[in-house]
Amino acid sequence: MKAPVILINLKAYRESIGHDAQRIAVAAEEVGKDAGVTMCIAPMFMDIHPMRHHYDLEVFSQHVDPVDPGAYTGRISARALKIAGATGSLVNHSEYRQTIADIEHCVNALKTEKLTSVVCSNNVATSAALAVLGPDYIAIEPPELIGGSVSVSQANPAIITDSVEAVRKVRDDVRLLTGAGINSGQCVRTALDLGTDGVLLASNVVKAKDPEAALRNLVSLL
Amino acid sequence: MKAPVILINLKAYRESIGHDAQRIAVAAEEVGKDAGVTMCIAPMFMDIHPMRHHYDLEVFSQHVDPVDPGAYTGRISARALKIAGATGSLVNHSEYRQTIADIEHCVNALKTEKLTSVVCSNNVATSAALAVLGPDYIAIEPPELIGGSVSVSQANPAIITDSVEAVRKVRDDVRLLTGAGINSGQCVRTALDLGTDGVLLASNVVKAKDPEAALRNLVSLL
Amino acid sequence: MKAPVILINLKAYRESIGHDAQRIAVAAEEVGKDAGVTMCIAPMFMDIHPMRHHYDLEVFSQHVDPVDPGAYTGRISARALKIAGATGSLVNHSEYRQTIADIEHCVNALKTEKLTSVVCSNNVATSAALAVLGPDYIAIEPPELIGGSVSVSQANPAIITDSVEAVRKVRDDVRLLTGAGINSGQCVRTALDLGTDGVLLASNVVKAKDPEAALRNLVSLL
Amino acid sequence: MKAPVILINLKAYRESIGHDAQRIAVAAEEVGKDAGVTMCIAPMFMDIHPMRHHYDLEVFSQHVDPVDPGAYTGRISARALKIAGATGSLVNHSEYRQTIADIEHCVNALKTEKLTSVVCSNNVATSAALAVLGPDYIAIEPPELIGGSVSVSQANPAIITDSVEAVRKVRDDVRLLTGAGINSGQCVRTALDLGTDGVLLASNVVKAKDPEAALRNLVSLL
Repeated sequence: MKAPVILINLKAYRESIGHDAQRIAVAAEEVGKDAGVTMCIAPMFMDIHPMRHHYDLEVFSQHVDPVDPGAYTGRISARALKIAGATGSLVNHSEYRQTIADIEHCVNALKTEKLTSVVCSNNVATSAALAVLGPDYIAIEPPELIGGSVSVSQANPAIITDSVEAVRKVRDDVRLLTGAGINSGQCVRTALDLGTDGVLLASNVVKAKDPEAALRNLVSLL
Repeated sequence: MKAPVILINLKAYRESIGHDAQRIAVAAEEVGKDAGVTMCIAPMFMDIHPMRHHYDLEVFSQHVDPVDPGAYTGRISARALKIAGATGSLVNHSEYRQTIADIEHCVNALKTEKLTSVVCSNNVATSAALAVLGPDYIAIEPPELIGGSVSVSQANPAIITDSVEAVRKVRDDVRLLTGAGINSGQCVRTALDLGTDGVLLASNVVKAKDPEAALRNLVSLL
Repeated sequence: MKAPVILINLKAYRESIGHDAQRIAVAAEEVGKDAGVTMCIAPMFMDIHPMRHHYDLEVFSQHVDPVDPGAYTGRISARALKIAGATGSLVNHSEYRQTIADIEHCVNALKTEKLTSVVCSNNVATSAALAVLGPDYIAIEPPELIGGSVSVSQANPAIITDSVEAVRKVRDDVRLLTGAGINSGQCVRTALDLGTDGVLLASNVVKAKDPEAALRNLVSLL
Repeated sequence: MKAPVILINLKAYRESIGHDAQRIAVAAEEVGKDAGVTMCIAPMFMDIHPMRHHYDLEVFSQHVDPVDPGAYTGRISARALKIAGATGSLVNHSEYRQTIADIEHCVNALKTEKLTSVVCSNNVATSAALAVLGPDYIAIEPPELIGGSVSVSQANPAIITDSVEAVRKVRDDVRLLTGAGINSGQCVRTALDLGTDGVLLASNVVKAKDPEAALRNLVSLL
């Protein structure tokens, strides 16, 4: 995916279910085109197929299970995501932590299916450790800032620059996204200036009264 | 749902993804109509909406998370299942065990959404305990028989009759399904004769070379 | 165990490690004798053996794993607890929730070893469901009150009386303990008056400047 | 710890409880002294204190929880392990997998307490990823060989040499142990020759009729 990247995690919010989710997708598609940004959306599993079908967006799963197709009830393999139309998946989101053995399985399974992997990390050390596994992206989200109104680039830009440096030291083909608290064009601008490819965010778009306006604000300094 | 009930859990099998899942749904719809059976299918999350849209079947989720809509990445609320078109959900499948606090939350959330709850249990004692929570159905699946070719009604009919009796003692409005190893018309017949409303099964239909023939065999003694 | 029962959960508090834990045990033993109360203490695993050896107290494990002796790293079987000198174990504490299949395994394993089982529940419905499994005690702890300064008997006595009634309906040999926020002699008095055998508490003794005074206060209205 | 290192994981085996565990400790202490080997034992939590008190052995916990002292029922902090007398802890054993955020927390907490961390990995990629977190040791245990009679050095020596190389590339201060299926002096010899500092093993000592003879065999080619 070409930078800059904006990845909207719809989570399980009330505003992310069914038609409401479509409202966000419509806005994302339009703003993405206007701004020349790679716009990605991560809906609930049930919306992966319709979102891919109806919009010109990268469609991410919010989660993938560390299983090959088989006797697993309620679990979703990378293969199943591919067939449903996903173009990638989040892995190890702070709201769905996974073991390192499972993360490695997922990164490889996504690679096999030519799906983009975005592995979430919580600090500099885990960012570097996860980069060793060779995902496409590491998304750094300091847990204390998730869902808040202060972005990581305001609160602690060093965690971003240190992560970029630490990741570069172990792998130079792994890109980074900045997460947690992203809420303005300045946040996105800073995320890029600090050496990451874009942002991962959720509530500040999903719960916005006007998602399109929120998105236009995010791309305003690109 | 009117007895007899046949609930096909598609799990995460290779044969349950995308078009292959449709093949099973087509067969289920047809056999269900011919035999006057309440046919239910539990596909992966991504197939809940299309299956409900295209087939005259009860469509179950394989799992529901114990969350109300909110900031939960990769989790599925009962509300989201309802909007996607599900008519019910499995809860606490042996391949996705849940805590008792979470099961209680899920049973109530499904009730609020008027979705049918099928809570899986592993023996007589847990069947009775779970019945206290007031789900629509308890599905008894002795773990040692799951995925095998010997059905519970052949191997250990006492576990069914004892469960029926134990459940009746705590609640008389909770119905039961017989699970694990169901593979023939005789299994289904016995499940009904022992006092349960039907069967929960997976591999013996999903992995059958001819799912329709497998389903016709299952309803052959009704 | 003879009522009234006071069960002190030491958790993993700084004040519960090593010599500090002994300080609480000394106080518990003395106050228990003076007041004619069955005093129980639930230390960390490492202190089970020395506490049983040095004090005249019922010694509970804070947790037991649903395993028979075998190849399980970091897990503790009921058998191992017995050999270490425990007289019982908490099961399914709200800070260590377990699946219903695992709770049933633990209750049975504790029974086999003649250890007292105290299964924690979070509301009326789960109290009754867990009672079906036949533990020695159900300890009701509404999660929203745990660790606070308002006790369940003040905030919501109905949850206790309703639980007692609901449990009685399914089993008349399962006793109850009142938990969450217990902080005074009045709380303990009310717990007994509402039909439970005693209380389960933690911070209000463990983090007290003077644990003995805190304990003397708890038994002051017996 | 000085190489060669032999770390015996007692797991939750019947042969590892109470007096039986002491029998293995006695043998380990004696063989360790005779052979000039750093002998380590990882008993159940309850035996950490007595083992450290009675034997001249490095005493490891089988697990540590990612918590600082606080309101955590049934959990064990690094601080509590230190006070109990442990000299180190296993982290992320294949029978007790942990998330990467939790592993990082544990490695740091053990470091703060000056306890030796041995983080288990399952393949080359996870070995390198975990090394980034800076534990004292990485113990490589291919899951498919654990508990078997074929050692990793016989079945797949490349996984060891590749892990040594991959770990060296990210950190040169992290040492390695070879695990899974270790059963003879040749296995230990090979583990050292391939560049690791020693071995992590369990059943082949714990379940041996004569643990001392098993241990003497292990050190026979040093």
